[in-house]
Amino acid sequence: MSVKYVGKGSFKFETAPEIAAWASVGASMESQGPLAKHFDYLSDDAYFGQATWEKAESELHRRVLELALGKAKISAAELGMIFAGDLQNQCTASSFGSRDEGVPYFGLYGACSTFAEALILSAMAVDGGFIERGAAAASSHFCSAERQFRLPLEYGGQRTPTAQWTVTGAGAAIISAASDRSRGISEADGAMIYTPRVTLATPGIIRDAGIKDSANMGAAMAIAAYETLYRHFEDTGRGPNSYDLIVTGDLGAIGFGIVEDFFRKSGTKLTNYNDCGLMIYDLKKQDVHAGGSGAGCGAAVLCGYLLGEMRSGKLNKVLFAGTGALMSAITSGQGESIPGICHAVAIENLPENLRGSK
Amino acid sequence: MSVKYVGKGSFKFETAPEIAAWASVGASMESQGPLAKHFDYLSDDAYFGQATWEKAESELHRRVLELALGKAKISAAELGMIFAGDLQNQCTASSFGSRDEGVPYFGLYGACSTFAEALILSAMAVDGGFIERGAAAASSHFCSAERQFRLPLEYGGQRTPTAQWTVTGAGAAIISAASDRSRGISEADGAMIYTPRVTLATPGIIRDAGIKDSANMGAAMAIAAYETLYRHFEDTGRGPNSYDLIVTGDLGAIGFGIVEDFFRKSGTKLTNYNDCGLMIYDLKKQDVHAGGSGAGCGAAVLCGYLLGEMRSGKLNKVLFAGTGALMSAITSGQGESIPGICHAVAIENLPENLRGSK
Repeated sequence: MSVKYVGKGSFKFETAPEIAAWASVGASMESQGPLAKHFDYLSDDAYFGQATWEKAESELHRRVLELALGKAKISAAELGMIFAGDLQNQCTASSFGSRDEGVPYFGLYGACSTFAEALILSAMAVDGGFIERGAAAASSHFCSAERQFRLPLEYGGQRTPTAQWTVTGAGAAIISAASDRSRGISEADGAMIYTPRVTLATPGIIRDAGIKDSANMGAAMAIAAYETLYRHFEDTGRGPNSYDLIVTGDLGAIGFGIVEDFFRKSGTKLTNYNDCGLMIYDLKKQDVHAGGSGAGCGAAVLCGYLLGEMRSGKLNKVLFAGTGALMSAITSGQGESIPGICHAVAIENLPENLRGSK
Repeated sequence: MSVKYVGKGSFKFETAPEIAAWASVGASMESQGPLAKHFDYLSDDAYFGQATWEKAESELHRRVLELALGKAKISAAELGMIFAGDLQNQCTASSFGSRDEGVPYFGLYGACSTFAEALILSAMAVDGGFIERGAAAASSHFCSAERQFRLPLEYGGQRTPTAQWTVTGAGAAIISAASDRSRGISEADGAMIYTPRVTLATPGIIRDAGIKDSANMGAAMAIAAYETLYRHFEDTGRGPNSYDLIVTGDLGAIGFGIVEDFFRKSGTKLTNYNDCGLMIYDLKKQDVHAGGSGAGCGAAVLCGYLLGEMRSGKLNKVLFAGTGALMSAITSGQGESIPGICHAVAIENLPENLRGSK
């Protein structure tokens, strides 16, 4: 048995499974944001044709998986496993959304870090030789999340400045054993098309900064994000500048600032760091307070804009760090603080001419 | 890359990771049941010294992991990953229970099948060479589950005959790369002690029989259990009689009868089939209606009685099939049926003298 771990808490995917295809869906707020053109499907109807917000989120999940399968030109029957999750109680958006696929199903709960968790586990399943091909998916819905984690929308409560806007969206990716095209394909016009690959992972350790305000999730998750990124750099010997982009899932303005600040205090100025919660909305023009959040935030930005930029070679080396707040309305109601988690995964284009990069 | 899958939806663990240690905890109903002496810890206090039932379940989770680590003679720092889940909204029993362990954490939601899911994923992580050692854990609590899935206990509703009693309990197992002792150790008195190993898995596909009664979960899950067991036998070429015991997680009397019936109609009489929900309580003497249920049911029976019987060689080949109902109070309230899932995992003693068995 070959041992794949790097440092204490990171490991490499020896075969570097490819992300063969990906898709993202969103709703009206996402269609007004700066990344609108990178979505595969945007709906004006927050119900996605369903009777309730919860059913809408299942439909969103079903649809994003179908879109990703279509782009991979495969049927669900060709998937060995689906790894999926969402924020609803008992993760029903994903289980009901995958109910008719007929594929072995692993339900996950990593709060808003779920997509990164799914990406790591599906890449492990492929890299370990357990399946040829799997899917990772995650979703969130503003209306189902608000009434689940905070207050019913009908209550009309005023949002605090630290609050974030839960993305109504989902992302899905098809993870496959590396193929001939993994090293890039030259198009008729000479342009290269790359198939990004999953190379390294640093799974998250639960960290609790003692924050109890469920309208300030960014601050609650920031310590986990800092700690995972720090461990990733330590374990792999890669500095922050090894990446074209380091991107957290949904810290928003508050959490993003805290992570930057932690690194600055440890002597590192991050120059290539961003957060999906800051990218998906225009914080100046859209009324989203501290930015986007939700399991669909990182999933949709990665499976839309970011992997698209990797496909064209504008980005070649991305560290995607999904962030999650592991609380519930019950734990908050019982006076508990909010534990955070952050799973980091390195995604790289690995054609011949980029192999030299470490 | 070696391909490990067997048949369409099953795969083998080439290195057959060992279950190095295991532990189970329960409360008063479990202490009155026939398996009481096989628990590592039984509490008369349903609160486990905490202020709320939800905090009690976190404590139960923390304690069972600590007991398993103690029996494996290792500290949490020696774990590469924890795979865990429970039935609470947003799976907070496990995340709060693992909050202080400092170990990479993968939160799972497979409803009552969660322990089987955790066992498969931790064995995949070890077998794939990603970690040397991981933990699988799952819990449930009668009081937190009742108010989450059905009605608040204070309501005092009468339970229907098909209802099951959610186990207040948890199980944890330490999964390690196979070691010298994996083949069995001869004790001073000549008796052999075995270390059971994880050899095959058939992950579950979501199946929905259209049942909507959340007080009849056994019936809702039975079709998934039948289908997974049937696929396991087909994929692996092993018939039911290859096993000393085939055991589902928590189908109870109703679901157990349906699975037996399905097999009988397909021409197979199961002679070595049981269900953890029928084993953990005395259905004649204890007021549990159709039997035990919950993520803690299968986890505690496996990590107490069953693995204990394997350790002494009374059982050598067990097919553990965790069963889960992937609904929530919200989906039931919105008129949805209850999708079921069942993850099967083969656990075997593999000393030299048993190698011949297929």
